Amino acid sequence: MTRICMIGAGNVATHLSQALQTAGHEITQVYSKTQNAAASLAETLGCSFTNQLQDITPCDIAIIAVKDDVITEVASQLNCPIAHTSGTKDLTVLGNKTIGVLYPLQTFSKDNTLNFQNIPICIEANDSDFLQLLNNLATSISNNVYQLSTEQRTHLHLSAVVACNFSNLMYQIATEICRKHNISFDLLKPLIKETSNKIQKVTADKAQTGPAKRKDLQTIKRHLSLLETDKEKRKIYELLTQSILNRS
Amino acid sequence: MTRICMIGAGNVATHLSQALQTAGHEITQVYSKTQNAAASLAETLGCSFTNQLQDITPCDIAIIAVKDDVITEVASQLNCPIAHTSGTKDLTVLGNKTIGVLYPLQTFSKDNTLNFQNIPICIEANDSDFLQLLNNLATSISNNVYQLSTEQRTHLHLSAVVACNFSNLMYQIATEICRKHNISFDLLKPLIKETSNKIQKVTADKAQTGPAKRKDLQTIKRHLSLLETDKEKRKIYELLTQSILNRS
Repeated sequence: MTRICMIGAGNVATHLSQALQTAGHEITQVYSKTQNAAASLAETLGCSFTNQLQDITPCDIAIIAVKDDVITEVASQLNCPIAHTSGTKDLTVLGNKTIGVLYPLQTFSKDNTLNFQNIPICIEANDSDFLQLLNNLATSISNNVYQLSTEQRTHLHLSAVVACNFSNLMYQIATEICRKHNISFDLLKPLIKETSNKIQKVTADKAQTGPAKRKDLQTIKRHLSLLETDKEKRKIYELLTQSILNRS
Repeated sequence: MTRICMIGAGNVATHLSQALQTAGHEITQVYSKTQNAAASLAETLGCSFTNQLQDITPCDIAIIAVKDDVITEVASQLNCPIAHTSGTKDLTVLGNKTIGVLYPLQTFSKDNTLNFQNIPICIEANDSDFLQLLNNLATSISNNVYQLSTEQRTHLHLSAVVACNFSNLMYQIATEICRKHNISFDLLKPLIKETSNKIQKVTADKAQTGPAKRKDLQTIKRHLSLLETDKEKRKIYELLTQSILNRS
């Protein structure tokens, strides 16, 4: 059992502290600069809370799950071993103490229950004992724990933005086209599901279909004419179609 | 029971004829200009086949599931009611007879078993009796049958390319970044699954997360610097990030 102080009370802090508590660890305290947020998370965990960093009581590790911009500032005021949960920040932004990273790779929303067992967790540390502690914590809640360097983790985060946020943008653009022509977006849902199912089993290269993959220039031309009055969508269609053509 | 001649022996023809047969309809004949392909599909269906359009025997409907480019040419040689299965082609490419469209919206691969019940089917016809026949066929294999105009169907097809093929391109770009930095693509699979699960329940607008949505310009700048040597990926990152920023 590890005694953990949770720094932050947002989506990641909430999901992570609940999963760690369920796995048998002790959340000793919740910190948030917003008193109400700290109190609310602490209540669900049955622990104490504070909005003053100097009031943090002794623990084995403080997990920093706050906005990227304030990680360094918060870390500089802590005197225990610390790990941040960011996909993009270097390990070294935490300073010169016993430091590490515990980065869960998932898209968190507050009201969404997630099974942590399937969420990949990436760990990194400047000390082998602390790496072991992070590994123990991570494996207690997830079956997918990976040791990655800062350089790997930042590239993984970039890939995640591409695979997740940009795909969601594609869903949004499709929604807009459907809405404009009185077509229910429900029609696209099975297709979206199947597209993401395929990629669990085959490579994206093999999974690709559609006019660009088939080099069906007639359909591409027709689609571009449908987008004539929407410059932004047309530009995106052109660039992404060219990119598939280059790969085919 | 409807007597159907299947024109084509590719992915759509295969999946569709098997589903229709299972639903109790009679596949009278399979046509493909490639004798072997026709024979192979006909064997799984237990029906006759031909590679000569003039040899097609009487039926209630010929379903044309061939490449878009040759639909008109094939249709001109048929003397029965006909429907094509294309997302992009106008109804009128079939000529002046009893004509219709039966467009199943899914990404078909030959070795992938699909449950047709969940696949949306879009129908259209130039005759109300024939529309009824298409509706009977479609509802016998799917719970999601929609009557769409040619204009709606072509926009739906465009949306499908955006939501499916372009998302898959995002998976492919993510794969390339991971491969370059020795990161297993497996790390991204749960995230991809969750992203497509979310969209089944909430709008794409609400589901969006990530640096562009948060207007986290520092992370965006960092990602662009990681892509400095890859002009194409950088251009895509810039355009799609700007597009999310515009919507946030």
